[in-house]
Amino acid sequence: MGADFSQIKALAFDVFGTLVDYRTSIIREGQQLSLKKGLAVNWGQLADAWRGKYRPNMDRVMRGELPKMSLDALHRMALEEVLLENEIEGFTEEEKEHFNLVWHRLLPWGDSVPGLTRLKSKYILTTLSNGSTSLLVNLAKHAGLPWDLILSSDLGGAFKPDPKMYQLVLDSLNLKPEQVMMVAAHPYDLLAAKSIGFQAAFVMRPLEHGAHAVPDLTADPSFEIVANDVVDLARQLGV
Amino acid sequence: MGADFSQIKALAFDVFGTLVDYRTSIIREGQQLSLKKGLAVNWGQLADAWRGKYRPNMDRVMRGELPKMSLDALHRMALEEVLLENEIEGFTEEEKEHFNLVWHRLLPWGDSVPGLTRLKSKYILTTLSNGSTSLLVNLAKHAGLPWDLILSSDLGGAFKPDPKMYQLVLDSLNLKPEQVMMVAAHPYDLLAAKSIGFQAAFVMRPLEHGAHAVPDLTADPSFEIVANDVVDLARQLGV
Repeated sequence: MGADFSQIKALAFDVFGTLVDYRTSIIREGQQLSLKKGLAVNWGQLADAWRGKYRPNMDRVMRGELPKMSLDALHRMALEEVLLENEIEGFTEEEKEHFNLVWHRLLPWGDSVPGLTRLKSKYILTTLSNGSTSLLVNLAKHAGLPWDLILSSDLGGAFKPDPKMYQLVLDSLNLKPEQVMMVAAHPYDLLAAKSIGFQAAFVMRPLEHGAHAVPDLTADPSFEIVANDVVDLARQLGV
Repeated sequence: MGADFSQIKALAFDVFGTLVDYRTSIIREGQQLSLKKGLAVNWGQLADAWRGKYRPNMDRVMRGELPKMSLDALHRMALEEVLLENEIEGFTEEEKEHFNLVWHRLLPWGDSVPGLTRLKSKYILTTLSNGSTSLLVNLAKHAGLPWDLILSSDLGGAFKPDPKMYQLVLDSLNLKPEQVMMVAAHPYDLLAAKSIGFQAAFVMRPLEHGAHAVPDLTADPSFEIVANDVVDLARQLGV
């Protein structure tokens, strides 16, 4: 590739989709809820619709059309919408509140923990996520993600792809852009990081949106690394 | 004691003095430097004088008499002062820069890592330190401190005992004051935390200032826990 990885000191990771499999986690908890309540729900479809509201709602917050709110609150608002749109009724307030927090209990992809553990021996590992600090801490404890640092939307006072978020990594770690590599399964995130001067590693998550979706796995030619998963990323970085 | 520990979700730790032994670490690195340069220096005295400038300089920053600067920059300024005051000459710029960063390479007290590791199984563990994020991350990697979260003066935009710092814990973790216990070897830090409503654990560090100093180990009656060390803290919290 010709890229120079020797300067890299820190890896900044997107979390949702890149390291944890929210779709399978939502389906699994949803099916348990269906069993308990005797309600038939297409949980895969609900998971997609629920997650599908994330970017549009986040954009509305960024444009000031919605007040600033935590990702938990955004998820809860979106959950109410998808339940209404799919005419799903019969869950109590407590059940909805608990189910909304499934985002704190997501399962990691199988390679995430072994890959991060290898990378941690050589690099500073930080999250750079639009999740709240509280959500990211709970998720890390639940999934066993071995972070050196948690950087979140509330600590940054913004949401990716706002440049403030990438700048937060540089300010917090006292590093130059070329010393940081952004790792994500989503090209928009990597392109925003590259515009600040970060290096970029694109991780394939072909099942993020389920087996029947057609994912965008097109790597921009500017990305320094295209990796099959986090263990492959460690291998390509020589760890 | 009668205190109710069952509500506690997170422990917020002071770091310098409470978990790491800066005095011994500075003396050890200083002695290596003396050996290399053939310079006789009383490193214990220098360590005390260096650290002794921390609170007064920090207070000057808080009063606006000094510009806002990182703890690294404050340490470097103080180092120049103590070298001058003790008429110590002969170190190069590179040697002073490297030596100043001894604060990134401090040794933990013997109980810190085993104690934190036990506590981590039950509680969210965060730093709440006047150090910079970068310093705290480097220190954690060097000393093996297993944090769930790093909260620092630059993320809080203030220095303890400013109430903003304690509020940062509550905002970041979405917790109420009574769900957090501040852990520190310094009463002023615990008293500030208690004024916000935190619980407080006072950890004895009788050698923080060396064997010949007389430390203030007087526990305020309001402190919920007085612990010999971090392992003892775990025991008292039933972990």
